[in-house]
Amino acid sequence: MDTLVKNVLADRYASPAMADLWSETGKIRLERKLWIAVMLAQKELGIAIPGEAISAYERVVDKIDLDSIRKREKETRHDVKARIDEFCELAGFQHIHKGLTSRDLTENVEQLQVAQALRMTIEKAVSSLSALGDCAERFRDLVLAGRTHNVPAQPTTLGKRFAMFGEEFILAIAELEHFINTYPVRGLKGAVGTQTDQITLFDGDLDKTSRLEASMLRHLGLPALMTSVGQVYPRSLDFALISKLYALSAAPSNFARTIRLMAGHEAASEGFAKGQTGSSAMPHKMNSRSCERIHGFRAILAGHVTMASALAGDQWHEGDVSCSVVRRVVLPDGFFAIDGLLNTFLSVLQQLTVYPAVIGQELEQYAPFLLTTTILMEAVKKGIGREDAHHLIKTHAVAEIETRRQSGNLENHLIDRLAADPNFPLDQSELERISHSIRNQTGNALRQIDSFLSSVSTLKARHPGYREYGAADIL
Amino acid sequence: MDTLVKNVLADRYASPAMADLWSETGKIRLERKLWIAVMLAQKELGIAIPGEAISAYERVVDKIDLDSIRKREKETRHDVKARIDEFCELAGFQHIHKGLTSRDLTENVEQLQVAQALRMTIEKAVSSLSALGDCAERFRDLVLAGRTHNVPAQPTTLGKRFAMFGEEFILAIAELEHFINTYPVRGLKGAVGTQTDQITLFDGDLDKTSRLEASMLRHLGLPALMTSVGQVYPRSLDFALISKLYALSAAPSNFARTIRLMAGHEAASEGFAKGQTGSSAMPHKMNSRSCERIHGFRAILAGHVTMASALAGDQWHEGDVSCSVVRRVVLPDGFFAIDGLLNTFLSVLQQLTVYPAVIGQELEQYAPFLLTTTILMEAVKKGIGREDAHHLIKTHAVAEIETRRQSGNLENHLIDRLAADPNFPLDQSELERISHSIRNQTGNALRQIDSFLSSVSTLKARHPGYREYGAADIL
Amino acid sequence: MDTLVKNVLADRYASPAMADLWSETGKIRLERKLWIAVMLAQKELGIAIPGEAISAYERVVDKIDLDSIRKREKETRHDVKARIDEFCELAGFQHIHKGLTSRDLTENVEQLQVAQALRMTIEKAVSSLSALGDCAERFRDLVLAGRTHNVPAQPTTLGKRFAMFGEEFILAIAELEHFINTYPVRGLKGAVGTQTDQITLFDGDLDKTSRLEASMLRHLGLPALMTSVGQVYPRSLDFALISKLYALSAAPSNFARTIRLMAGHEAASEGFAKGQTGSSAMPHKMNSRSCERIHGFRAILAGHVTMASALAGDQWHEGDVSCSVVRRVVLPDGFFAIDGLLNTFLSVLQQLTVYPAVIGQELEQYAPFLLTTTILMEAVKKGIGREDAHHLIKTHAVAEIETRRQSGNLENHLIDRLAADPNFPLDQSELERISHSIRNQTGNALRQIDSFLSSVSTLKARHPGYREYGAADIL
Amino acid sequence: MDTLVKNVLADRYASPAMADLWSETGKIRLERKLWIAVMLAQKELGIAIPGEAISAYERVVDKIDLDSIRKREKETRHDVKARIDEFCELAGFQHIHKGLTSRDLTENVEQLQVAQALRMTIEKAVSSLSALGDCAERFRDLVLAGRTHNVPAQPTTLGKRFAMFGEEFILAIAELEHFINTYPVRGLKGAVGTQTDQITLFDGDLDKTSRLEASMLRHLGLPALMTSVGQVYPRSLDFALISKLYALSAAPSNFARTIRLMAGHEAASEGFAKGQTGSSAMPHKMNSRSCERIHGFRAILAGHVTMASALAGDQWHEGDVSCSVVRRVVLPDGFFAIDGLLNTFLSVLQQLTVYPAVIGQELEQYAPFLLTTTILMEAVKKGIGREDAHHLIKTHAVAEIETRRQSGNLENHLIDRLAADPNFPLDQSELERISHSIRNQTGNALRQIDSFLSSVSTLKARHPGYREYGAADIL
Repeated sequence: MDTLVKNVLADRYASPAMADLWSETGKIRLERKLWIAVMLAQKELGIAIPGEAISAYERVVDKIDLDSIRKREKETRHDVKARIDEFCELAGFQHIHKGLTSRDLTENVEQLQVAQALRMTIEKAVSSLSALGDCAERFRDLVLAGRTHNVPAQPTTLGKRFAMFGEEFILAIAELEHFINTYPVRGLKGAVGTQTDQITLFDGDLDKTSRLEASMLRHLGLPALMTSVGQVYPRSLDFALISKLYALSAAPSNFARTIRLMAGHEAASEGFAKGQTGSSAMPHKMNSRSCERIHGFRAILAGHVTMASALAGDQWHEGDVSCSVVRRVVLPDGFFAIDGLLNTFLSVLQQLTVYPAVIGQELEQYAPFLLTTTILMEAVKKGIGREDAHHLIKTHAVAEIETRRQSGNLENHLIDRLAADPNFPLDQSELERISHSIRNQTGNALRQIDSFLSSVSTLKARHPGYREYGAADIL
Repeated sequence: MDTLVKNVLADRYASPAMADLWSETGKIRLERKLWIAVMLAQKELGIAIPGEAISAYERVVDKIDLDSIRKREKETRHDVKARIDEFCELAGFQHIHKGLTSRDLTENVEQLQVAQALRMTIEKAVSSLSALGDCAERFRDLVLAGRTHNVPAQPTTLGKRFAMFGEEFILAIAELEHFINTYPVRGLKGAVGTQTDQITLFDGDLDKTSRLEASMLRHLGLPALMTSVGQVYPRSLDFALISKLYALSAAPSNFARTIRLMAGHEAASEGFAKGQTGSSAMPHKMNSRSCERIHGFRAILAGHVTMASALAGDQWHEGDVSCSVVRRVVLPDGFFAIDGLLNTFLSVLQQLTVYPAVIGQELEQYAPFLLTTTILMEAVKKGIGREDAHHLIKTHAVAEIETRRQSGNLENHLIDRLAADPNFPLDQSELERISHSIRNQTGNALRQIDSFLSSVSTLKARHPGYREYGAADIL
Repeated sequence: MDTLVKNVLADRYASPAMADLWSETGKIRLERKLWIAVMLAQKELGIAIPGEAISAYERVVDKIDLDSIRKREKETRHDVKARIDEFCELAGFQHIHKGLTSRDLTENVEQLQVAQALRMTIEKAVSSLSALGDCAERFRDLVLAGRTHNVPAQPTTLGKRFAMFGEEFILAIAELEHFINTYPVRGLKGAVGTQTDQITLFDGDLDKTSRLEASMLRHLGLPALMTSVGQVYPRSLDFALISKLYALSAAPSNFARTIRLMAGHEAASEGFAKGQTGSSAMPHKMNSRSCERIHGFRAILAGHVTMASALAGDQWHEGDVSCSVVRRVVLPDGFFAIDGLLNTFLSVLQQLTVYPAVIGQELEQYAPFLLTTTILMEAVKKGIGREDAHHLIKTHAVAEIETRRQSGNLENHLIDRLAADPNFPLDQSELERISHSIRNQTGNALRQIDSFLSSVSTLKARHPGYREYGAADIL
Repeated sequence: MDTLVKNVLADRYASPAMADLWSETGKIRLERKLWIAVMLAQKELGIAIPGEAISAYERVVDKIDLDSIRKREKETRHDVKARIDEFCELAGFQHIHKGLTSRDLTENVEQLQVAQALRMTIEKAVSSLSALGDCAERFRDLVLAGRTHNVPAQPTTLGKRFAMFGEEFILAIAELEHFINTYPVRGLKGAVGTQTDQITLFDGDLDKTSRLEASMLRHLGLPALMTSVGQVYPRSLDFALISKLYALSAAPSNFARTIRLMAGHEAASEGFAKGQTGSSAMPHKMNSRSCERIHGFRAILAGHVTMASALAGDQWHEGDVSCSVVRRVVLPDGFFAIDGLLNTFLSVLQQLTVYPAVIGQELEQYAPFLLTTTILMEAVKKGIGREDAHHLIKTHAVAEIETRRQSGNLENHLIDRLAADPNFPLDQSELERISHSIRNQTGNALRQIDSFLSSVSTLKARHPGYREYGAADIL
């Protein structure tokens, strides 16, 4: 019976770098480096640890044999103990983990994984944002019928629509930046948070205990230390993290939803890889599979939010491990899901195809409807009462809607109807002039796009690493 | 970079049988069997399929090469197509998948996986229930201080407490039985649900289409067929499934919570594997790690409920694949989580240690408090007014509580206080007689336990397979 | 400071009958009736309760003064005590609540509210189903371009589309029927579930205790009694309830989503009340506000599922009240939300407007694409190789798509392209004949609709009360 | 039929100020003030609005007749229109809402409500934090057996335990501060976000449009304006808000859970209002009802997180109202729930009773177990091998545990056992000295408490308004 079941999110959707960070191997490597950093600091603070021991540990950091470790765990029934024994036997010394409890190791390493994954996520988000900015710029002037309630409402531009999603995306990225910039690490606090074991190791020297923690913090590269924490760091921090990952999914989801809708009108298509043409039987079918997948990741992240919410506020006394299996799922999977989502988002943005002719056709069809306010104003200038003008426009508009829907012919004859009405003061050419002005009726859209693009530039400058997240090759 | 990430739920917690069912290999095997069943039925209904072709397919059912299939998928960018090509090349024929769409294959196979996983889950649940019944029987008469709001309230027995959890568990099992007994399968409905492709294959013969579906249903061994479904079966079915798995976690979680609480009083312990003694530094620490883990699985399942809820009610027209990645996660992981939970529950039940002396000690301490109603009644029989008696009892009880808490001495002197009060009509011996009667004050508890045990027997008789789920060996 | 805040779901969306059932007044009335039923049964079983006392209580059942009760609660800080005192003072007797604990009253009354609300919900759901059936019948033959991934895929009929949603709806209704048919009530179990207090009242007579519970069950009109329950009935029952209400929202949500999509193509409109024309400024805007609202209710119910999931599996020992405030929210609000959703669904169904001309226009546009399989088959019959024919069709189809999207002219020239290709064996008239046959290409759709309609009839016959839920008048 | 159903969270649990802010009346007042602010700014920017009109509106701001407004809504079927008409008729002018869409009004007002509610919440949280700080100070030195897995582990102090919860609470408060300090308001963006209507009003003057928005922002007192938003502000902002409210519930929930556990050992009690003594029948029952209620609010907020998560990422094009009914529930109710939770938390903190004698008793009982590490070290100093010493300690500890649990006598004889063992190098007096040192074995706890108290002071200084949230009087 071959029961290997891979983590489907890591295997099919996340990037290798993200998968590696959360793999068993990746975690064990981080643990070993932390042990070494702690040994170095302890040695400096006077604990008798021979330099050659540290060198011996350093030499075997990457010698990771999962089978051997798993065998040890089966015997000792203690996962951390198994990893200590393995590392010590490889090095031929027994100097790691002095004065540490299991959580002194695992909490800090997991927070380090979170921090590294978060930095990766932010850079990848900025990469997507950059591509979204490019689309906003490319379609800056492409006027279309803005829709509310899925029904044409007023003119806008496609670039502005993308800037709208982009502004939301930037807000979510800023929240993640804030999180990583203030992320407090648990530190070496011992079994119930009082640091008793480290203090004992240092013969009661509280200052050395503090200096050891400071060293560890430098090693981790994180911004702050908690002080009064118990056995575990507060799980509301995990909830805050996961809920921010979820918030990051919102703008891509809104974007994807709109692309799915536009695809239904043949106004846009998420694009296809070379050689791919939807279904072989139905070559016209260019399905928005990737956009749909973005919504799938969003649903998964919503579930992770619920999982994390169950941990926050459920601590008994100084702590317990009811969170253990949950965090084994929700921390990696949350990052895998957002990673897969961002890969997919970037891929859609890079291959996005827009059909200006279809969009223009739609704009023409709805133009008189989209401009009734302007027509009303111009009519009033000619002397007709506002209420009278409004009544005439409404009557003809409703009749026009009824006719087009009953006939199935979606050409718009509102202009002709109004022109033909002797009571209405504007003539055909005046009305057509208004109707043709529609591409100039986008209000403040262009300045808004510029403002968005400027924010994109700021973020790109702050996270130059975004450039490494290039064309994603998704399944 | 070694990026293999295993599914942690399958790898660490679920049983091999459950992992196998949801493994890639397991799914491909079920797909191939379904293709063969459909070919056999199509042949019987007149489609030209040579018998030797079918035999050829049958011979290679278990020849599953995941690498080869993954390579094909990378080329065709279509997972089902890759699996069709692989199977055909192995068999040397091209007769599978006639008149089928991808979903005609995958929906039915996934429903079959659900049904098989559910049957396994029910049997494992009955196995746990059987062990819970044994505990209820074993501690049928062990009187303890029943607690509400975590504070002693009235006498009950430990067996009754277990029967209480057991009744809830039975309700949840019954819901799963009902689900599997009415579970409707999508069938072969084609691209939008009209069965056009099968009807074309049978030259417009609607009856043959129906008979083909009936054959497939027999192969699957499921109770019912949907009729008007679209491209996909309604995702509210997945939600119903996952929410019932969650409901199944409730009774074990309530049980586990109470064991964690009892362990805090040293009244019970979840037991330890041979040789295991908590922490080596602190040998007295018998942590309820398994019970805590049960709560972890519950949190994970709550997240799965949220994921599944995002799918139900989110269908566009005849269907799409925004559910795809979600179901790749939530169906296997939901079953892995409940499987791990039931393994853990069974293991706790099998190793449960109860300390009657500690429980008895606690009962003694609280006895007079637990019996104030009886004391009151007996006093009234002696002629004192009810309100006067109540006032005296309350005054002395509050004083006693205050004293014991201020002193830290938890012996209970309420009896002495009342006996010493000249206004109270019962003397020391009468009061002590009442106090000593506490083990007879468990009301209807024993009959309730018997009723519960009888329900357990019924379920065991209905699911004799439960016996195969013996002693779980958990990490 | 005027701080009255109404329950917005009850006030704006739920029906008066549902609001009344969950109002304070409604609940107090049910409590009083339960007390009276218990008194009658106790009297019959020999407890000394004068008949005139019972009559006195019966006379004041409807005299409900919330202010007076609230004042009592502020003094006693005990809500049930306040309601006991009020009722007794009104009646001039003190015979209610004998041998009962607070939960003996409240748990049973709340389960009764649930049962009554559920019956109302089922009938209202059947009323909506009936309206959906009418729509399926009305548009039985209206052929349209079935869509998957929001892109035209194969022909189907609008009636079949509605039957598809209807089948899902029926599955969810059946689950509610099953729930109410097996719903077990907690009964009179006392403080920790052992029935000690009732047994004491009957001087140890266990049979009388059982007969009292049986009487109460008859009064409630519910199907079953729990036996081994503790202070409270298992909260997994509340979770099961709320998750079934959520499942009921799925089919209406799928329906509503599709109407919102169709409205974007002007193919359908959810209809408007007389005199209403969207926005006065933009008379063409017929927004799917009601369908959007259905999705709002779905989101609310998803939140209720999470709330209820937090209760299931969180019991400590024999019970506590951490669930209290949650159930005060989730039970009424869950029913208000589903009630509002069903009101809205019914209203949309009753006013639904469909534009066959628009639908027909779309079908024409896509017809050749929707029929490429048929064209292929006919071509092969003329002697061309399957692969050659497929290559030609695909080449022309892709070219046609590119042209129409580049031009914005959505007329379909695939037929002309193929006819003009000397290598393709079918001529213009043959191809047009196929294209015109599209309205006969709906496979098994009509039989599926009939099957659905027959299920609707069965449900209507089983719940004749559905007729009372007529035209909903929604805000 | 009296169907008034009050919002139970507002009615029973939230403070009057919070209820008022979200009442219909409260919202209408804010709307009217916004209209007036906009008129003043428009007048200044040259729009012809007579000063006396503005005065007329100002005079009737507080004349709010809900019945009249509701009657208007029933006629117009448009809620904003109804409120415009009412206000205009009261004032006798028609100058409000110029160039505004409904969302220009409602989005900004709702964001203002959020901001005001958030400021109230932060101050109330700081008030609770202050009370928690007082408790940490009061029990700074009270040594107790710190527990992990609900089992005694190492000594700590009760003050440190409270500081542990307090540190988590401060992190969540800081998140809310950050949120309000960066909260961007939607502004006046028109129907699809392009500001077309305001621009038209100002005859195309984009600068005036900007200056109008800046004026409005000053009126709202909020920190930032969005630029590229559509019809609605991104709903991920609502999700961020609600998830931060949930995070705020975590520390109080952890605190409450621990108090519930301590109450089960009679080590602490949440305290009772004067005159209240649990149950009249069982005077010893001091139930942690308020702590349980805190957990109830947490469950409700978890549901609100799910509701809000359904909104984020579900926008179609420039916006729709599927979020409307959800936000009518989740914004007020989320704040009512956290308000009720904080009221309850504050009340528990103010009345918290701790029983040092019981805590001390427990500490004595477990002392030798809590100090095995120290005993080991001291034994090694006497020359015995570490492994030998460990083996002896473990053997005796396990035997001692077994004995105490089998006997029910929880006195600890580990010291006697070790002293009696001729192989163990420490004698009775040496061992007792170690055991008696337990109150000095709290490591760094006191410095940690001081660090926490200093953070509390900083927050109190930053939010002096916290003082107004005094003794909450809860039901």
